[in-house]
Amino acid sequence: MKKEFVQSVTAMDDDFAQWFTDVVTKAELADYSSVRGSMIIRPYGYAIWDNVKEALDARIKATGHENVYMPLFIPESLLQKEKDHIEGFAPEVAWVTHGGNEKLAERLCVRPTSEVLFCEHFSNIIHSYRDLPKLYNQWSNVVRWEKTTRPFLRTLEFLWQEGHTAHATDEDAQVETIRMLDEYAQLCEEWLAIPVVKGQKTDKEKFSGAKSTYTIETLMHDGKALQSGTSHHFGDGFARAFDIKYLDKEGKQQYVHQTSWGFTTRIIGAMIMVHGDDRGLVMPPKIAPTQVMIVPIAQHKEGVLDYAYSLKDSLSGSARVGIDASDKKPGWKFNEYEMKGIPIRLEVGPKDIEQGQVVLVRRDTGEKLVVSADELEDRLTALLEDIQNNLFNKALSHREEHTSVATSFDVFKHVLVENPGFIKAMWCGDVACEEFIKEETSATSRCIPFEQEKLSNTCVCCEKPAEKMVYWAKAY
Amino acid sequence: MKKEFVQSVTAMDDDFAQWFTDVVTKAELADYSSVRGSMIIRPYGYAIWDNVKEALDARIKATGHENVYMPLFIPESLLQKEKDHIEGFAPEVAWVTHGGNEKLAERLCVRPTSEVLFCEHFSNIIHSYRDLPKLYNQWSNVVRWEKTTRPFLRTLEFLWQEGHTAHATDEDAQVETIRMLDEYAQLCEEWLAIPVVKGQKTDKEKFSGAKSTYTIETLMHDGKALQSGTSHHFGDGFARAFDIKYLDKEGKQQYVHQTSWGFTTRIIGAMIMVHGDDRGLVMPPKIAPTQVMIVPIAQHKEGVLDYAYSLKDSLSGSARVGIDASDKKPGWKFNEYEMKGIPIRLEVGPKDIEQGQVVLVRRDTGEKLVVSADELEDRLTALLEDIQNNLFNKALSHREEHTSVATSFDVFKHVLVENPGFIKAMWCGDVACEEFIKEETSATSRCIPFEQEKLSNTCVCCEKPAEKMVYWAKAY
Repeated sequence: MKKEFVQSVTAMDDDFAQWFTDVVTKAELADYSSVRGSMIIRPYGYAIWDNVKEALDARIKATGHENVYMPLFIPESLLQKEKDHIEGFAPEVAWVTHGGNEKLAERLCVRPTSEVLFCEHFSNIIHSYRDLPKLYNQWSNVVRWEKTTRPFLRTLEFLWQEGHTAHATDEDAQVETIRMLDEYAQLCEEWLAIPVVKGQKTDKEKFSGAKSTYTIETLMHDGKALQSGTSHHFGDGFARAFDIKYLDKEGKQQYVHQTSWGFTTRIIGAMIMVHGDDRGLVMPPKIAPTQVMIVPIAQHKEGVLDYAYSLKDSLSGSARVGIDASDKKPGWKFNEYEMKGIPIRLEVGPKDIEQGQVVLVRRDTGEKLVVSADELEDRLTALLEDIQNNLFNKALSHREEHTSVATSFDVFKHVLVENPGFIKAMWCGDVACEEFIKEETSATSRCIPFEQEKLSNTCVCCEKPAEKMVYWAKAY
Repeated sequence: MKKEFVQSVTAMDDDFAQWFTDVVTKAELADYSSVRGSMIIRPYGYAIWDNVKEALDARIKATGHENVYMPLFIPESLLQKEKDHIEGFAPEVAWVTHGGNEKLAERLCVRPTSEVLFCEHFSNIIHSYRDLPKLYNQWSNVVRWEKTTRPFLRTLEFLWQEGHTAHATDEDAQVETIRMLDEYAQLCEEWLAIPVVKGQKTDKEKFSGAKSTYTIETLMHDGKALQSGTSHHFGDGFARAFDIKYLDKEGKQQYVHQTSWGFTTRIIGAMIMVHGDDRGLVMPPKIAPTQVMIVPIAQHKEGVLDYAYSLKDSLSGSARVGIDASDKKPGWKFNEYEMKGIPIRLEVGPKDIEQGQVVLVRRDTGEKLVVSADELEDRLTALLEDIQNNLFNKALSHREEHTSVATSFDVFKHVLVENPGFIKAMWCGDVACEEFIKEETSATSRCIPFEQEKLSNTCVCCEKPAEKMVYWAKAY
């Protein structure tokens, strides 16, 4: 019997960071190893990632992209070809200096992202307008040499997909950039039940080498924001650095226009911090590896296990159903599957069988329902949908309650303490104000949202005229 | 119009190595980059790998294994814990010595394989016999610092799955080792149409740290062998080095018994070299990303394209069907899809439509069939099955024709030149004979096959008494 499943996690309100770590380890999502800053993604965590991958990969393919695989290593000279890009990434890359027993003539960095490899490849395979667009994606691991790390949120190595595309025109690239941001937003909202704010990053916060970066920002239970997916428009900056040209229909040489976009294992951290509670993880049904867990009651009694297994078989067409027929006590099983956030627990014992019913327990509300066996399948389907919607609505309400408006810097500082969350405030566009706000409050600009509101006419910081509304928050 | 598709590849018999490289690049499976020894896996190559992955992942899960993900980096001290293991791998690992701008206190190697990481994790999560078996698998990239590399066959970085399991007894581990070897063998024979020889590696050729290594060996068109999948039984060697113990039912501490097994992107190299011909790649239908390619004839004529697309739609339930409606000439398209080894080409033009028929062309035999539209679906299904079987039988005949028996060293040397391929010969078990044969002929022991034959009583090398029949060959 695993003792850890009856221990509860640290209360969220006592110590949110410790609560997070407790959930990660006790729900068996990830574990530590002797590799600093890296994590072991355990079977339950990996099954969640596999479901995210499957849903996202389908979207990526449906929008016409093809999967490829680029090398793990990048020669230092190649990484240096685009000036802004190397400046942004050099401080956080891992360097391979030796192969076997020999010192390398040129250092290789372990990819922090693969723009330069895609660029080199594009310059070899793109010749004519007929070769465009090139719509590529890669599922891979990347490494960024972070000092402070936390499972899923910020790890030295993480898993992700990175899309890389080349287009004939700037407009085509812009359409692609927003298209893929929208795919991320839909995945988050429809599958992960996490509401997002879509917008553009300020120049200070954009990707190294990008002309513009777009983001989906999400709000965690503790009021901190999490950048949950980004999509970059490169213009022809990389194309000029890597000489990626095509012959247009008029026979003229033109530079291509590029994008890249990425979505990572970090989203599992978001899912934990948006939906979780003091009893552990709460999984949105659409992404849950197991949606319904059957726990037989008094399973030693004749017919109970047979009945439980027959239920599993009959329900498996309409939901992902598990069964725990181990010799642990039901109470221990309840705790374990609550910790793991399984959306619905199905209890069935001798009396239930006699009365042609089962007991369903919702993880999100704790509600208990007695359901007759013949309407079970329909009720389950409806219930899973209801849980999915409830999680989204709860998260949306939480975000709305924790989104404040600040029209002066005093109010800004006040609400950041009194009601941690997003702050909507006007900004003049000057990076100096952005830096000042960060220094004074440690809140950063999250994005210039697509949905703009005119809160006032002046910058929340310098009080000069301001046109743009920005979302600000402390962030992970 | 892509010029490369009308260029033919180098003839196999003129220069097999060049033929291989031509097929890899002209069928657009992979490309080179400025990263030495690594390859870019292009969309077509990656789609094949995705199909292999999907088929193998289903087998891995059906046999009760769970996917996990371990870190990319291994601290040097951890790698050194099992003596034989580090000795085997040290000469071929890439070392990370710097993170960002700082020199690391301890070097990290980029995983060449992940035994030590799994062992460390097992020692943390295995406590009782109830925790066994642990049946884990990982899909990942690994790096081995090879001097001489070739796409798919031997690359500095490759993609693979590595299974890692822990069991209560040596017998359980042995059953697992053979079970997964059998899964590999079935995948090769049933999906990739590549016949395999199953057997055990000699001590000289076994995995560093293993008690015994099992292998599936395949024979390429040029008579060289390719090790195509291995499964290792570790006994309790790693368990002792990493202190992986469990409390048995009697309350006694016991070491676990472990296995590992791996299957890589190398198999795509095997597929090329087993089935390919002078017109390029030949894909086994089960693994082909596109099984049927529709090429409309005189597509500018009214109704042709509409009809071709309606065919695609109606056939998509029973096969993976593509259509090329580009403005390239049909002849160019024929060349392109022959190069890519698409199993069936479907031609349809105005006359065919009038007569209610289509033309099917088999890639494997070149045979042309006129098929009436109403029996098309059934004929296609049967044809794909027939192509799959034909490729397997052809490869099996080729292997049988290129498998010789040698009962003396003179015959051994003679047949190796006259009929390059497998040589079956008796071996006394002495590593000195193995080394002598390798030195004299550059053939290596491929395996001690499960299906033994008593060819003679004496070793083919030293003529001392010999009990074991061994498969020998020059190998990739």
